[in-house]
Amino acid sequence: MKVVDVLHMNGGIGDISYANNSLVQRKVILMTKPILEQAISDLYCSLFPEALCIADLGCSAGANTFLVVSDLVKIIEKERKKHNLQSPEFYFHFNDLPGNDFNTIFQSLGEFQEDLTKQVGEGFGPCFFSGVAGSFYTRLFPSKSLHFVHSSYSLMWLSQVPDLTEKNKGNIYMANTSPPSVIKAYYEQYEKDFSKFLKYRSEELMKGGKMVLTFLGRESEDPSSKECCYIWELLSMALNELVVEGLIEEEKVDSFNIPQYTPSSEEVKYVVEKEGSFTINRLESTRVHWNASNNESNGAYNVSRCMRAVAEPLLVSQFSPKLMDLVFQKYEEILSDSMAKEKTEFINVTVSLTKINSLNLEQVQ
Amino acid sequence: MKVVDVLHMNGGIGDISYANNSLVQRKVILMTKPILEQAISDLYCSLFPEALCIADLGCSAGANTFLVVSDLVKIIEKERKKHNLQSPEFYFHFNDLPGNDFNTIFQSLGEFQEDLTKQVGEGFGPCFFSGVAGSFYTRLFPSKSLHFVHSSYSLMWLSQVPDLTEKNKGNIYMANTSPPSVIKAYYEQYEKDFSKFLKYRSEELMKGGKMVLTFLGRESEDPSSKECCYIWELLSMALNELVVEGLIEEEKVDSFNIPQYTPSSEEVKYVVEKEGSFTINRLESTRVHWNASNNESNGAYNVSRCMRAVAEPLLVSQFSPKLMDLVFQKYEEILSDSMAKEKTEFINVTVSLTKINSLNLEQVQ
Repeated sequence: MKVVDVLHMNGGIGDISYANNSLVQRKVILMTKPILEQAISDLYCSLFPEALCIADLGCSAGANTFLVVSDLVKIIEKERKKHNLQSPEFYFHFNDLPGNDFNTIFQSLGEFQEDLTKQVGEGFGPCFFSGVAGSFYTRLFPSKSLHFVHSSYSLMWLSQVPDLTEKNKGNIYMANTSPPSVIKAYYEQYEKDFSKFLKYRSEELMKGGKMVLTFLGRESEDPSSKECCYIWELLSMALNELVVEGLIEEEKVDSFNIPQYTPSSEEVKYVVEKEGSFTINRLESTRVHWNASNNESNGAYNVSRCMRAVAEPLLVSQFSPKLMDLVFQKYEEILSDSMAKEKTEFINVTVSLTKINSLNLEQVQ
Repeated sequence: MKVVDVLHMNGGIGDISYANNSLVQRKVILMTKPILEQAISDLYCSLFPEALCIADLGCSAGANTFLVVSDLVKIIEKERKKHNLQSPEFYFHFNDLPGNDFNTIFQSLGEFQEDLTKQVGEGFGPCFFSGVAGSFYTRLFPSKSLHFVHSSYSLMWLSQVPDLTEKNKGNIYMANTSPPSVIKAYYEQYEKDFSKFLKYRSEELMKGGKMVLTFLGRESEDPSSKECCYIWELLSMALNELVVEGLIEEEKVDSFNIPQYTPSSEEVKYVVEKEGSFTINRLESTRVHWNASNNESNGAYNVSRCMRAVAEPLLVSQFSPKLMDLVFQKYEEILSDSMAKEKTEFINVTVSLTKINSLNLEQVQ
């Protein structure tokens, strides 16, 4: 499986689309807004740029894609009015992998801009938008071209499934029953990927540039702890039921692994400091219930839908697309059972970073 | 009909897609390459920029989208090696209307870059790519952010169907039988649109920035001359046959008009000089046969396919999608007949422009 070709949220605006099943992600953006607000205000007030170049990495397609943009515009508008300045030109880059549904983003831009003008009033911007397709584990933008990078619920995705020396038998992610070598391989892939991410972004950000990144993460020291792995364990249970029913070969489940790592705050801090391009301004963790909807009666249905929108393209790279309805029906039953009995929350780790000015380095370049 | 919502080439990579039916457009890009070559070489050698920001406006989706990019990279690589310089960072923006199939572009980028590296060798770039959705009759890019603008076979499309005071009865475009007020309205829309285009691009281009623009045009002074209007007249004949057969209401044809204007070199020159932001370096016209394929036996089929890839989304905004197979079958028959009897060529007008440095103006801003 080549993650860059396979990983994307379900496209379009239909029943099982990401656009219609991303309430958790929305809630997380709203919860972490104060951190975003502080970072972008600090950035604006330290540079007062006439043009402001902002990238959202792993933007996906749907209302959440635009939520961050309108938040950022509103924060800057407040600041620039406070300082009695002209509104800057906004330049927003939407980034995601090439399989993302950019057409849906572009076709919604007109309506979004009208809405934004209604909310903010005339006189801001102009705003320019572009789509940039590619993995954020590669260079995406020209050198020193960005002021600000935002990414929410994307950086837990790895660039590839870790190279495993042992089978992760019966599992599709790190689990209690995973061999220690599997856990180690997952962590190493994470450290390698996140370091690369930091290096490339430091090349793309200009002097004083900032980032706010939110990961699906964990609080425990144990990377296979239930708080981050249980949601996938329940999905592996659904797949294993289909193995028992003879609809999926056991080998197919054994060799399928989700390319994700949910780091702890300490791990984020460790990699940032080791890589050395950024200083940490804030590092916080928050919690959000699996079912972000206010409607509790449909909890398992909502969570199953949300996970389907996120994971279906990965699953159909390994299993028959015809089985997807059945897989997610079983998953919903299993979720329903576990959500009735246990506290089921996602942990989010948010880090706010500023690029370190390495004057000497720049002189050498 | 809102052109910005309706106009786009047929998407995807299927049988009636633009990607598979755009040989004429490809040939025109190849024919006008010497003009492009001179312009981009002059630009590069006057600025020697470390990063080069280039926009292709009306890029559509398919091999042609990438042809211009690889031409430009090759020209610059030749120049920078001649001057013993490092390769610049390339930043390419692909622009088209929001209905364009950007997903297809993004999904082909990986393969394109591999091909380009095979052709040019390692050591160029890096190249960055972005998609920008919107009408080029609006601002698309931040102020002074572009070095070079290219557009081929796009600028003959108007921002809207001209407001007509009289019916253009029996026609779908300017024709011999069109009332003079219709011809006048078409020209006025063209002048307004192209002036706007020049004004916005001059805001987006930096000092010394250049553009090479190729229009479907004409050589005659008469805007309703056969050389530019006949291809649409034959399509209106096909539609009118369906009127006779009772499959289309007459009123539907009478009220449908193609939002296009094919200017002469003199008209291009007039508008550029009147608008005042650019000087003309070169202004040339070329000719290309309607059937760009080397296979002459399939001429009418090829032309009908090419026109379908371009015009189908416009037509289905007015006529039933179910009729399209029939319309283009009839069109092919009519084309076959006329192509056997007459010289059937498109005229292309290419203009190479440099932004005028208005120092005083910039000081005032």
